[in-house]
Order: sequence, then structure tokens, then C-alpha cells
Amino acid sequence: MSGKVAVIMGSKSDLPGMGGTFDIFKEFAVPCEARIMSAHRTPDEVANFAKTAESKGFKVIICAAGMAAHLAGVVASFTILPVIGIPMPCEPFNGLDSLLSMVQMPTGIPVATVSAGSAGARNSALLAISILALSDENLSQKLKDFRKKQSEKALLSDKELVEEFAKRQK
Amino acid sequence: MSGKVAVIMGSKSDLPGMGGTFDIFKEFAVPCEARIMSAHRTPDEVANFAKTAESKGFKVIICAAGMAAHLAGVVASFTILPVIGIPMPCEPFNGLDSLLSMVQMPTGIPVATVSAGSAGARNSALLAISILALSDENLSQKLKDFRKKQSEKALLSDKELVEEFAKRQK
Amino acid sequence: MSGKVAVIMGSKSDLPGMGGTFDIFKEFAVPCEARIMSAHRTPDEVANFAKTAESKGFKVIICAAGMAAHLAGVVASFTILPVIGIPMPCEPFNGLDSLLSMVQMPTGIPVATVSAGSAGARNSALLAISILALSDENLSQKLKDFRKKQSEKALLSDKELVEEFAKRQK
Amino acid sequence: MSGKVAVIMGSKSDLPGMGGTFDIFKEFAVPCEARIMSAHRTPDEVANFAKTAESKGFKVIICAAGMAAHLAGVVASFTILPVIGIPMPCEPFNGLDSLLSMVQMPTGIPVATVSAGSAGARNSALLAISILALSDENLSQKLKDFRKKQSEKALLSDKELVEEFAKRQK
Amino acid sequence: MSGKVAVIMGSKSDLPGMGGTFDIFKEFAVPCEARIMSAHRTPDEVANFAKTAESKGFKVIICAAGMAAHLAGVVASFTILPVIGIPMPCEPFNGLDSLLSMVQMPTGIPVATVSAGSAGARNSALLAISILALSDENLSQKLKDFRKKQSEKALLSDKELVEEFAKRQK
Amino acid sequence: MSGKVAVIMGSKSDLPGMGGTFDIFKEFAVPCEARIMSAHRTPDEVANFAKTAESKGFKVIICAAGMAAHLAGVVASFTILPVIGIPMPCEPFNGLDSLLSMVQMPTGIPVATVSAGSAGARNSALLAISILALSDENLSQKLKDFRKKQSEKALLSDKELVEEFAKRQK
Amino acid sequence: MSGKVAVIMGSKSDLPGMGGTFDIFKEFAVPCEARIMSAHRTPDEVANFAKTAESKGFKVIICAAGMAAHLAGVVASFTILPVIGIPMPCEPFNGLDSLLSMVQMPTGIPVATVSAGSAGARNSALLAISILALSDENLSQKLKDFRKKQSEKALLSDKELVEEFAKRQK
Amino acid sequence: MSGKVAVIMGSKSDLPGMGGTFDIFKEFAVPCEARIMSAHRTPDEVANFAKTAESKGFKVIICAAGMAAHLAGVVASFTILPVIGIPMPCEPFNGLDSLLSMVQMPTGIPVATVSAGSAGARNSALLAISILALSDENLSQKLKDFRKKQSEKALLSDKELVEEFAKRQK
Repeated sequence: MSGKVAVIMGSKSDLPGMGGTFDIFKEFAVPCEARIMSAHRTPDEVANFAKTAESKGFKVIICAAGMAAHLAGVVASFTILPVIGIPMPCEPFNGLDSLLSMVQMPTGIPVATVSAGSAGARNSALLAISILALSDENLSQKLKDFRKKQSEKALLSDKELVEEFAKRQK
Repeated sequence: MSGKVAVIMGSKSDLPGMGGTFDIFKEFAVPCEARIMSAHRTPDEVANFAKTAESKGFKVIICAAGMAAHLAGVVASFTILPVIGIPMPCEPFNGLDSLLSMVQMPTGIPVATVSAGSAGARNSALLAISILALSDENLSQKLKDFRKKQSEKALLSDKELVEEFAKRQK
Repeated sequence: MSGKVAVIMGSKSDLPGMGGTFDIFKEFAVPCEARIMSAHRTPDEVANFAKTAESKGFKVIICAAGMAAHLAGVVASFTILPVIGIPMPCEPFNGLDSLLSMVQMPTGIPVATVSAGSAGARNSALLAISILALSDENLSQKLKDFRKKQSEKALLSDKELVEEFAKRQK
Repeated sequence: MSGKVAVIMGSKSDLPGMGGTFDIFKEFAVPCEARIMSAHRTPDEVANFAKTAESKGFKVIICAAGMAAHLAGVVASFTILPVIGIPMPCEPFNGLDSLLSMVQMPTGIPVATVSAGSAGARNSALLAISILALSDENLSQKLKDFRKKQSEKALLSDKELVEEFAKRQK
Repeated sequence: MSGKVAVIMGSKSDLPGMGGTFDIFKEFAVPCEARIMSAHRTPDEVANFAKTAESKGFKVIICAAGMAAHLAGVVASFTILPVIGIPMPCEPFNGLDSLLSMVQMPTGIPVATVSAGSAGARNSALLAISILALSDENLSQKLKDFRKKQSEKALLSDKELVEEFAKRQK
Repeated sequence: MSGKVAVIMGSKSDLPGMGGTFDIFKEFAVPCEARIMSAHRTPDEVANFAKTAESKGFKVIICAAGMAAHLAGVVASFTILPVIGIPMPCEPFNGLDSLLSMVQMPTGIPVATVSAGSAGARNSALLAISILALSDENLSQKLKDFRKKQSEKALLSDKELVEEFAKRQK
Repeated sequence: MSGKVAVIMGSKSDLPGMGGTFDIFKEFAVPCEARIMSAHRTPDEVANFAKTAESKGFKVIICAAGMAAHLAGVVASFTILPVIGIPMPCEPFNGLDSLLSMVQMPTGIPVATVSAGSAGARNSALLAISILALSDENLSQKLKDFRKKQSEKALLSDKELVEEFAKRQK
Repeated sequence: MSGKVAVIMGSKSDLPGMGGTFDIFKEFAVPCEARIMSAHRTPDEVANFAKTAESKGFKVIICAAGMAAHLAGVVASFTILPVIGIPMPCEPFNGLDSLLSMVQMPTGIPVATVSAGSAGARNSALLAISILALSDENLSQKLKDFRKKQSEKALLSDKELVEEFAKRQK
């Protein structure tokens, strides 16, 4: 499965918080297309995109939106592709509104919601990759390597801290 | 303006909580049409309904939905008619999810959100009537009479309580 | 219906967040009057204003207030005109208090609540215009044009993003 | 100061939860008057009552209301008498809405808010009595006696539990 | 009743937010004593202070505290004087913790809770004054004057805004 | 890809709420295995299961847990398979704790969180199927048929309601 | 260290929810004393108990309280013994008030807070035992055995479920 | 009991907020080891550490983590040592997620949760010391001295404030 991923943002203002998503896809060499489409300002484009996404070769659709974040749910209503939602924090409710608007989908149309904000940006890409990796040996291996490097980085942080504390106590 | 109102529910399970809406419209003899349409399960019908609502003579659209309540926002994205949202309480988040999913609409597409649940059911109809009454003298007078009767009922409750307390103290 | 709109703020400190409301009304050439009136500090003025608003030609009243935001509810109790409430975020509860104080009106007296803060400021004006447009062909057309321009702006953002990503990948 | 206390409820439905208030005033033989007045359905009566309360010999005003509980704040805006608010829990937000609507009064007009629901019902009366007791030696002594009895009752519960556990362990 | 008021803060860090309290008491020439006493770090001093406050001529005790704000409740448990609580906002829960810790007192020991933070600082003093004014004609008059000035200030803000808008439209 | 799905519950008490998951898998004839494993009471079994799941032919792992719901996160830390989390509502925090414990995964280890409770139970299975369908034409068609039937059912509800209202008005 | 544990409840109404605490202590044969003492209704007894607890041989103090749950914090302010707090859920805020009132202790006086309600009742006892076990080999072994049995019970639930599903599929 | 304490952080980013923990241990000369280990990125290391902590002489384990803070619960699942959790506030939910993820442990595996953030950092160390002090006379005395100094510092703040106010009033 040589799939590509769509990354849709509800507004240009969501772009700065989404860097992590694109970094991950670049690191894994997974083709992704970034789009700005609003469930409320361009609903026909959203519907049209979602209805044709499968036939255009998309395998997973990531949606990032804030406030009453309907984007992921609306996209999911028009496609059977897995849809991943990232609740973007906005003033004044700081993402509680977008989290509940995304995750609490009624029976029948799921949205795979990840963490709010920048952690979610990276995690949405990793979740998409874990899905693509199910039928892509190469990607599966890359994801295992990524995890290993991630562990090693954490172990290194630990090692440095232990050494620093050892020095202090001399 | 002899307008009619659409009352859309996201699911059949929203119907029992919506009695107050229909009672008010009946009391005011305002024509209303009740529909069940799901932003997620029948998105094309919702879009189609909203796009043609104005031409079919609807003046106001009331949307009741629970959980990640996208219905009102989706309807509003396809029409310039005023859209009123009623957040329906569902387990387990009891309407906080539907309130935030409805009221926190991003810039450009407003939803007029009223109280959650049964108070909102009645208030949605009264709000619709206050809008229709702007160009309907008869309806305007009826609404003033309704308010007056409502006050009198509250005054009567007060009178009865005062008398009851007076009796107790003898 | 050549109506005008009242925009009431609970305090001078609400003014800076309300720019979007006045911008929209200016863009649509809808006459609006801005007032500062406090449900708690000038209750008689609020009552008097609300009671006479209809006879003075107001069609819609927008109320912006923070904290225990009673302004919209108090205004609504004295008039049958549609009342739109904007919950203004204040420290420390950041608008959750004003949202609940506005939207959760008891049966009989609705307040049409829109998003908290600056998104609500713009949306309150757009909601008022959608109400006025019901009996004003010209305004109705302007609102459709506004929506169209809004969509085109979103489509342009999308186009620019797509081009930017295309460049990066060369 | 031989004062009397007004106990205002926003709706007849608040009466069942307010038994504790009246029980306390009866126990202390403090004269109180119970009223049903709605900030939204009978705003003129509320304003009139509050404006004349001082001249009618009221010393403290207790207000119980649910949802967007404006009653206490509206009363407080028309009188300099101390106003005590009891947030009544209602479906679906269970008193969080009424608590924030009552306690978060803006600068200048305080409301003395007590616990939500039945604990608040009793505590509102005890708070009113503590205020009246400031210039009523007799009432002050009664309140001290009440506190003492309350402590003794708690001590008795403790004693009984200790004895019960002692028996179990034999 | 020529009473004085105690203003107790749970920590030195609460002092900067409490300026409004002292300003109000100064403006009304009501004698107040400021103290720093912690329910947790100096519990014996708190108990001792509360037990002897009445005999030392205090009429009202104001307590400001953040986080798990036990100060007001602990003071109230040792005195029958009215106790006013100000929930101080602290990171990370921004006053929701202190509000609930203060207002939700169990049956028998009320705390009169006012708004969180700086609005509450001023309102606590105004509430105390409204209590003292019950038996102090002079103070009662001052409070009425204060309210009047407060209204006039709000009316002036309104007038200035109306004029400003009139100018803009020329 | 003829994959199977693991459905892990944190406790036997989660089983009754999970009926919808198994119903969906049965309807789609997707093989699933149900397990009870606790992140806290049988952590070694959880780790062991997660580490070997891929090699045993599992393609997706669904985890349902309540309270501090660590199960999904812990499973995800030991496998690169997509992990879907269902926050189960428990007293007293009714699923807000399990939602936040599941969805707010730190950078690097995503959990695909769906709605809390019974809606999530069904949606978790549908999300898993949408993932499996990416490389299973047959399943993909079944999912499209399911969506169609789901729409038709909603349309039927609408039709019945419209007819019922038509009758009432005769 | 042959220590005993005090289990203090803020009110008789907390007793029914505390069965799990006493069951655990009985199972481990750890001596415990149950008391009812209210931070607000019997503050002197609480202070006296806490000040003398260490000298009476108590090693750990467990406090269960609801609403504005000050009990644990007040006890902790008078003793250096470890204090464990159980937030008891009460209407209407269902334990969010007691959780925040317990856990958010200011710097200097910690309270070891466990889960709200019945899960916390059992966990408070297990936490106390883990503390006592630090210097009691026998208790340490019992706790390990308890954990093992707990795991085995979970494994058994898993086994039964697996078998049940195996049967169904035949 | 000459025990040592482990202080585990879920991520290097938690280190700056943890200064208070190390300060307290230094002040009390209690040996502590600082580690960075992630429940999600290095789960095997966490399991291994927790399983062997007792045998390596650790008496108490402190875990600090943010977001879906599983670290403390995971550690607790592998050891019978007392585990103390510090919920670290992170954007955007500011510690409500980590608090609920830590404190709401299911029956059988307790985590002793302290205040969120920097207050919790210091309090976690003080709680650990109160546990160690149960079998360490010297430490017990130090803790009493610490408490005394802490009280004296608070008393001094009070004294300075009283003097400052006295000056102002001259």
C-alpha cells in the first residue's frame, strides 16, 4: 500500500501549530498533501474533497481544527477512510471545546482523536503511519526504528541527568 | 412575513426532549416542520435541506443535537437564515460537549445557541417567534401577551406562597 | 424593515474586544448604536432602555458582558426583541462563567448566545444581520455576497498553501 | 436590631430544596418572608421589591435560583442590603452554571454566595443569622448554642462509631 | 455599631491582589486590620485569632486564599462572626480550586463567598460594609452615595461612548 | 490483509458497556479476540500481549478502560500497531478522567481516542474496520454498505416523523 | 514498627462509602481506629486528635470528606504523620469540589490524595499499608501476596472471558 | 530505616519545575536519585526500575509527569513501595489532565497524589520525608523543626504586615 495522507486545517491560523505533522511525514518519506478547508466557510469543498479522497489515493485524512471543531466529523461523514482529529487550542476555552467537538462523535461515524495541540500534531502523523505500516513492511520497520531512536533519546536524557546529579554530589 | 420554521433533530432519540418546542409553536400557531437529519449519517440531506430552506419559505431553522453536536453549524454553513441551536444533554458529559460544539462557532458562521435540554427546547421556539415577530404585528402582540401571562403565572405562584406562609404562621 | 441594532456592553473594558461587531455593521451599512450599560451598576437605565428599544426602532439588541454576565438576560426580560449575547472572557475563569451565565436562561426568556470573545463579536453582528435580512432583500444579497467572499478567501488560503507545498517538494 | 429576612426563590420548583432555610429561621425564631420572584419573568416586581426592601424592615435578602441564576445579582443591584445567593442545581449542568452566575459578580455589587443546593439552603439562613446577631445579643447567644449543639451531635456520632467498632473487635 | 473588619490572607503572595479591599475600607473610613495567617502553616494562630475576634471588636472577617483554600472555612469554624471568602486564583487551576474549596462548605458553617480575584477583593469590602451599615446610619448613607457615584461613572462611560460614536459617523 | 482485532478491557466491569463493539465485528465478520487485562493489576501480561500482538496477526488493538485509564497508552508503548481507546464512564467523574487519561498522550505514542461509553464502543469497531478496509476490498464494500444502510435508517426515521406530523395537522 | 492507622470521616454520611477501607485493614490485620470528626463542626477535637496522634501510636491518618473537604488539610497542619485524603463525592459537584479541596494543598503541608469515592476507600488503606510495610517484613509479604492474588483474579477474569468467547464462536 | 528516594520525571521538560523537590531533600539530607523515564517511550526501563527499586534500597518513589500522566500508575503497578505522583501542568489543559490521570487510580493500586506543579514538587518531598520519618527519629525531629521554621516564617510575614499597616495609619 503506497498511500498518501491528507492534512486538512480548518483555518490558516492552524498552520503554525501543525509543523510537527509535516516533520514526521518528511522524516518517514510518507507523501502528504496539506490543505486549508473550513467545515463552515467552504463546506462544499470539504464534502467534495472527502467524497473523492479514496479514489484519489488518500489512505488517511488528518483534520486539525479549533473551537467548535466540526471539520473531522464532517469529513468522516463523507468517507470511509480513517479520519484522525487534532483538537487545536484557541482562546478562551483552550481546546476543551475542540476536544469535545471532535471526540464525542455519535454512533456510526468515528473520529480517531489525538492529543490537543502540538503533541497531537506529531501524534496524528505517527498514528497515520502506524495505519499505513500495516501493509507496508518498509514503513513498519521505519516506525520500529523511530520508536527505538525515541527510546534511546529518552535513555540518553536519563543518563545525562544521572551523571549531572552524580557530579553535583561530589 | 408569514414564515415557517424548520425544527431539525440529529436523531430520533432527541424527539422526546423537544416537546416544548412544538408546544410553543402550536400555542402561537406558527407553522413548523419537524425533521430528523444527521450531520454525520445523512450529510447530503442536511446540505440539501439547508441550501434550499430559504427558497422553500423557511425563515428560521432550529437544530437540536447531542454529543459532538455539529448539526447546527453544518446547517448554518449552507444558509444565511438564522440558525438556532439547542444542546441536547447525553451521557456521559451531559450536554457540556454539545453546548461547546454548538456555541463556539468560528468567525463568520454564527449559531444562536440557547439553554441545554428542555428549557432550550421551549426557548428556541420563543427566540424564533421573536425573530418572526419583527415583521408580524399579530405575532408580536401574541408574544407580548405570552410574556404577560407568563408574568402573571409567576405572580400567582408568589401570591400562593405568601398566603401559604401566612397560614402556617397563624 | 430598515432596522437598527443596539450594541450594549456591560463595561468600558468590554469595548476593545468588540471591534469586530462594529466592523461588520459598518461593512454592511447597518445602523447600530453602541452603549455602555451595566445590569448591576445602572439597572434602571438597562430596564428603561430595554423597555423602550422596540418603540425607538431597534430590531435586535446585542449584549456583551463578562463574569456573571447578567446583561443579556436582564435586557431580554424587558423586551420581546431578539437579544444576542456575547460571553466576554475575563480572568480567572476565562469566559466559562459568562458563557453559562448567558446561555443557560430559564424557560420563557431566551438569549441567543454566540461564541465567547472576538469570534462572538463578529458573529453577533452577522447573526443580527441574518435576522434583519429576513425582510430586507438588499441586506440578504449583501450577506450572500459576504459569505461568498468569505469562502473565496478560504479557498485562496488553500490555494496558496497547496502552491507553497508544491514548491517545497521540488 | 429586630430584623426580618426575605427569602426569594426564582421559581416554584426551587421551593422543595429550600426547606432547610425555613427550618433554621423557625428554630431561631427569626421572622422571614418567602417569595417567588423571577429576575426574568417578573423583573419589575424584583426591582420594586429590592428597592423597597430596606424601608420595609428587611435586613438581609436570600435569593435561591438555578441555571443562569441572575436573581441574586439583580436584587443586589437595587439595594444596599446584604444579599445571599444559593446556587440551585438543575439538569443538566447541576449547579455549576448557577454557582458561576451568582458568585462571579463584577466589581461594585457583591453577592454572598453559599454552597449549592440543600447545604446552601441551611447555610444561607445561618449566614443571615450571623449578620443579624451582630446587633442582637439574644440571637448571638442562640447561634453559639446552635453551634455547640451541632458540635455535640458530631461528637455523639463519633462516640457511637467508636463504640460500634469496639464491639466489633471483641 | 462601630465595628472593625479583619482581613486575613493565607500567604504574603495574596497581598498584591488585595489592594482593592484596603482601598474600599479607606474610602469608607472603616477600620480594618490586615493579617497573614495560614490555615496550614499557622493553624493555632488562626484558631486563636478566630476564637477571640468577636471579643476584640471585630464584626466581620474577610479571608483571601488560593489553591485548597481552607482559611475561610477554618476561621468560620471557630467564630459566629460573618466570614467572607475571596478565592484567589493561582496556577495552574486558576481559582476553580479555591472557589470550590471556599464556597462548598458543608451544612452548619457558612462562608460568604465573593468573586475570585481582584473583583472579589473590592466586593468583599463592599459586602462587609453592607453588613456593618445595617446598624450604622452614616455608613449606610455612604454606601448609597458610593453606589450612586458608581452609577454615575457608568453613565458617564456610556455618554462618552455615545458621543464618540456620534463623531465617527459625521 | 486478513487481520484480526484485539479488544482489551481493563476490568470485567467494562464488559457490559462493550456489547456494541462485538456486535459490529460480528456484523462485519471481522475476527476479534476479547481480553481482560489491567494496566495496573496485570501489567506484565499487558506488556507481553502488546509486544507479541503483531506477530500473532493482530492488526488493531482496541482498549476500553475507566478512571485513570492507562491501558491504551501502556499497550501503545509496546507496539506499533494502531491502538484505539474507549474512555469508559465511571462514578464520580463520569468519563472526563478516562477521556483525558487516554487522549492526552505525550508526543511519540499516539492513542486513537473515540467517544466515551457506548457510542465509543461501536465507533471503536467501525474505526478498526475502516483501517482494515484499506487493504481489504471486501471489507471496504461492506463498510460502504453499512454506511448506506445507516443513512437509509436515518432517512426512514425522518420520513416517519414527517408523516406523523402531517397526520397530526389534519 | 507495629503501627496503627486512624480513619477519620468528616460526617456520619461518609461511613457507607468507607467499607472498603475497613475491609482491607481487616484482611491485613492492621489495627485501625475509626472516628467521625468534622474540620468545621468539631475543629478543636480535630486539632487535638491530630496533635496527639503520633504520641498515641498512630502511624498514618486517613481522612475522608466531601464538598469543601478541609479535613485532611487541617489534620495535616497539626501533625507530621503522613495524611491520606479520600475525596468523597457529594451532590451536586460529585467530588470535583472535594478532590480539588484535598489535593491542591499549598507548599509545606502535603496531603496524599487517592481516587474519589469507593476506589479511594480501598486504595487509602492499601497506601497506608504500603507505608507501614516499609518497616514490617510480615506486612510487606502480605502486600505482595495481596497483589499476586489481585493479579490472579484479573487473570481468571481474562481466562473466563476467553473461554466464553471461544464457546460463542463454536 | 536509612532509605533513599527515587524521583522520576516523565520527560526532560519536567526538570525545571522539580527544583523544589531536590531542594527539600538536600535541606533534609535525604539521599535521592533523579531519573528521567517515560511510561510510554521507555516502558521496559520503567518496569525494570520499579520491579527492582525495593531491592536497591529505595523506600519511596516520586513520579512527576504531565498530560496523560501514566508514569506514577505504571510504576505503582510494579512495586509495593509507596508511589507519590506530581501532576505537572502542560498546555493546553494545564494539569487537569495529569491530575485526573494520576489520582483516579482504580481499586488495588494507589498513587499518593499531591498538588499540581511547583507546590506539589516541594510537597512530594515533604510527604516522602514524613513516611521515612516514621522509622527515623532524627528525620522526624528535622521535620518538626522544618514545620516550626515554616510557621515562624509565616508569623514573621504577619508581623511585618501588621507593622506596615500600623505605619500607614499614622
